[in-house]
Amino acid sequence: MTIHGISPDVLTALEHVLGQSGVAADAADMAKYLVDWSGDHHGGALAVLKPASVAEVQAAVRLCGTLGLAMIPQGGNTGLVAGAIDIGTARGAVVISLERLNRIRLVDADNFILQADAGCILQHIKDAADEQDCLFPLALGAQGSCQIGGNAASNAGGVNVLRYGMARDLIVGLEAVLPDGALWNGFSGLRKDNRGYDLKQLFIGAEGTLGIITGVEMKLFPKPGRVETAYLGLPSFEAAISLFRRARRQCCDLISAFEIIGAECMELARLADPNIVAPVTTPVHVLIELSSSAAIDLRALLVDFLAGTMAEDLVTDAVLAESGAQARAFWAIREGLVEGQAKRGYHVRTDLSVRISDIPTLIAQARQFIELQHPGWISQAYGHAGDGNIHFNVLPPLDLAEPAARATGATITTGLYDIVNALGGSISAEHGIGRTRQRVYWAGMSAVQRRLVSTLKDALDPGGLMNPGCLFPATETSS
Amino acid sequence: MTIHGISPDVLTALEHVLGQSGVAADAADMAKYLVDWSGDHHGGALAVLKPASVAEVQAAVRLCGTLGLAMIPQGGNTGLVAGAIDIGTARGAVVISLERLNRIRLVDADNFILQADAGCILQHIKDAADEQDCLFPLALGAQGSCQIGGNAASNAGGVNVLRYGMARDLIVGLEAVLPDGALWNGFSGLRKDNRGYDLKQLFIGAEGTLGIITGVEMKLFPKPGRVETAYLGLPSFEAAISLFRRARRQCCDLISAFEIIGAECMELARLADPNIVAPVTTPVHVLIELSSSAAIDLRALLVDFLAGTMAEDLVTDAVLAESGAQARAFWAIREGLVEGQAKRGYHVRTDLSVRISDIPTLIAQARQFIELQHPGWISQAYGHAGDGNIHFNVLPPLDLAEPAARATGATITTGLYDIVNALGGSISAEHGIGRTRQRVYWAGMSAVQRRLVSTLKDALDPGGLMNPGCLFPATETSS
Repeated sequence: MTIHGISPDVLTALEHVLGQSGVAADAADMAKYLVDWSGDHHGGALAVLKPASVAEVQAAVRLCGTLGLAMIPQGGNTGLVAGAIDIGTARGAVVISLERLNRIRLVDADNFILQADAGCILQHIKDAADEQDCLFPLALGAQGSCQIGGNAASNAGGVNVLRYGMARDLIVGLEAVLPDGALWNGFSGLRKDNRGYDLKQLFIGAEGTLGIITGVEMKLFPKPGRVETAYLGLPSFEAAISLFRRARRQCCDLISAFEIIGAECMELARLADPNIVAPVTTPVHVLIELSSSAAIDLRALLVDFLAGTMAEDLVTDAVLAESGAQARAFWAIREGLVEGQAKRGYHVRTDLSVRISDIPTLIAQARQFIELQHPGWISQAYGHAGDGNIHFNVLPPLDLAEPAARATGATITTGLYDIVNALGGSISAEHGIGRTRQRVYWAGMSAVQRRLVSTLKDALDPGGLMNPGCLFPATETSS
Repeated sequence: MTIHGISPDVLTALEHVLGQSGVAADAADMAKYLVDWSGDHHGGALAVLKPASVAEVQAAVRLCGTLGLAMIPQGGNTGLVAGAIDIGTARGAVVISLERLNRIRLVDADNFILQADAGCILQHIKDAADEQDCLFPLALGAQGSCQIGGNAASNAGGVNVLRYGMARDLIVGLEAVLPDGALWNGFSGLRKDNRGYDLKQLFIGAEGTLGIITGVEMKLFPKPGRVETAYLGLPSFEAAISLFRRARRQCCDLISAFEIIGAECMELARLADPNIVAPVTTPVHVLIELSSSAAIDLRALLVDFLAGTMAEDLVTDAVLAESGAQARAFWAIREGLVEGQAKRGYHVRTDLSVRISDIPTLIAQARQFIELQHPGWISQAYGHAGDGNIHFNVLPPLDLAEPAARATGATITTGLYDIVNALGGSISAEHGIGRTRQRVYWAGMSAVQRRLVSTLKDALDPGGLMNPGCLFPATETSS
């Protein structure tokens, strides 16, 4: 990683456009924008720009274009793939933080629409919807810090995708500043509009490589007043997949979460909170949630469903939450896994997807690979089973020094990607590509796909200044 | 409209690639491909190509590229905006019909995925899903004729969008032949995949202007074994919108249709079938359907919901279907409107969307416009209320000759578009732009939007041979 100094002239020009409070150029002020949430990635920047309005974003983009400065758009900096951290591939870029664009513009409960600035924190949006008796269903571990613009740019997933879809499915309109500084306003307030190309799709999931999202228009849903949660014990991942298939039919569209957790993960959850005790002791755990805004007896539905599955030994143990507090305790186990991993320090983190029916094979092959090739490393399998999405993570032996662990970790990641590729799966179910997965993403694409992707990038960002090194190979043009 | 003759050399070259059965060039053989479903639009073509495989589509596209022949991809020809009919703007194109690519490739009920050739008829896909106890929810009047490739290219809507979304929301993968004949394979079998740009979004809704869709990979849902249908009488469209809002909350995600119908439409339904009698006599009718694969007492849910709304006079009359036959009779009224219009001959047909809360205003303003400016013309308002989508159609007086009716009809269409634009709505909620709405679409776009749309088209179809005159202004390049 190279950090270039910023010239006084450039700094003056940026401050002229954004004011002194809109530009940070010394190391202390920039620090928090240059390290990601996991602590895994540290980057450099010429400056961090903090525009306070959409017009200031446009002015900043125009000036950077004139100066030939590469731009890295940044939301809450909670991504896991260095999409907003220059880990050495952008070579002297400015970070453009959207954090000061943090206004909720409209909550229209009558039409189930919410409009917000890109820098709004996801939790604030969820709270604003909740106040109007609505639900904005995007739900992530990072929701207290991540920003809706980053959620849109990365097409965020989370625990409610099964029922409500990814960020892409929840977005009805976007507003974005294009690489030449022009503002594209794709807000409509409409639930349905079929006029020509759906341009918002370009920017969703593009990870800031085609422009900077400044506003997001979202779908709201009725707030589910009724929720039933159960923590289940199962003999195997095969049983979990059979259970999911049956739940999909017998519980219909009322399932809002179906998380699977390998029992080996419990130790991690206890790193986050030593008092955590799993309610079951089987090899595989399932956390299932049903929810509804309608007066449906979800408890009866869930009990009937579980009775049938227990009679057939698909489920061997089941605990139904008797209170909101107990349901939160179940979720604390799921969230504790992630926190526990972070506390453990460096580890291999993946975000794989396969056909739902291939989940047991993926996990079995991955576990065997670790056992045989990397004894002492500890496999952890959990994820969103209904989406075919498994986070297969691997922790280094406690006595292994971090540099050695990172070297072996890279080898392990490659091995896991080989396994998922052989199953026709994806190396990125929901976290995106960013910079950490750029090479393997690029190498895995067909020539036609690569050409299409490059054609889009070249057409929309001909100067190549938008988030270079992210998604695309780093070039020498933005040094 | 000009029909150019095809030269013997070109015909020979096409037959060499596609065989004699793959090329139609005389008027009788081409006739059915050159008139749309409504009978409103007649076009011309140099030839109709009928490739029998994806490889033949590629070969045909390559040859057309070499010869500089414009190409009009065509599915079931059930579109309503002349997207697949050259009404004089493509000047000597070939139609490429996908009808011989009609194989269902895979029905994977375990993973809730279905893969099919573009030329498969929607009803066949729905039947194949049904056989595996699954639902493919796209539901249109034309489902017995329309093809899934056309549904994808036009981002089709229909009566189940409220619950399951548009075609875009139901598609997980695409396969398409690009303008240079290369094949892009975007099938994955995965429910969740977040690797970079989501290229399928380019082709969905692009109406064949960026390439030719040859295969579609779709999401399946559990088949809803339980369905409850009710036909309701309401005092006003305002009441209908209040009813929808309440239904959205009280019936949760279990509503699969919420259609509103102005009482004036009943006469049209009787043109389709004189025995049709509406079960209610109020100014506004609502057809509501709840469905579920789970063992939920939908009847109790619906009765409770209606009891509350009747106590408050939102609903003044309600008939619950007591059998599948009665439910089908309710739907026959809704479907009869469309058939009745077609029997009536030429009429103004629109596909407007506004914010859901603006529906009553839209209908009131549109009715007043017709009454005051075009007395004798007959307004018909019906549509998918939960999507904000109203088909406001206008029938000419019976004694008006068709040429005069068409002239006035064009003026009426403009007037209705002015009303919807003033409300911030869309002139195309679901039918697309095609050729009939091209001018007004183009005129209504911002300069930035127009530039983005043109940039995409120029980047992906630099020769401009893909469906010229559709979406974009006709140019002289493909004469």
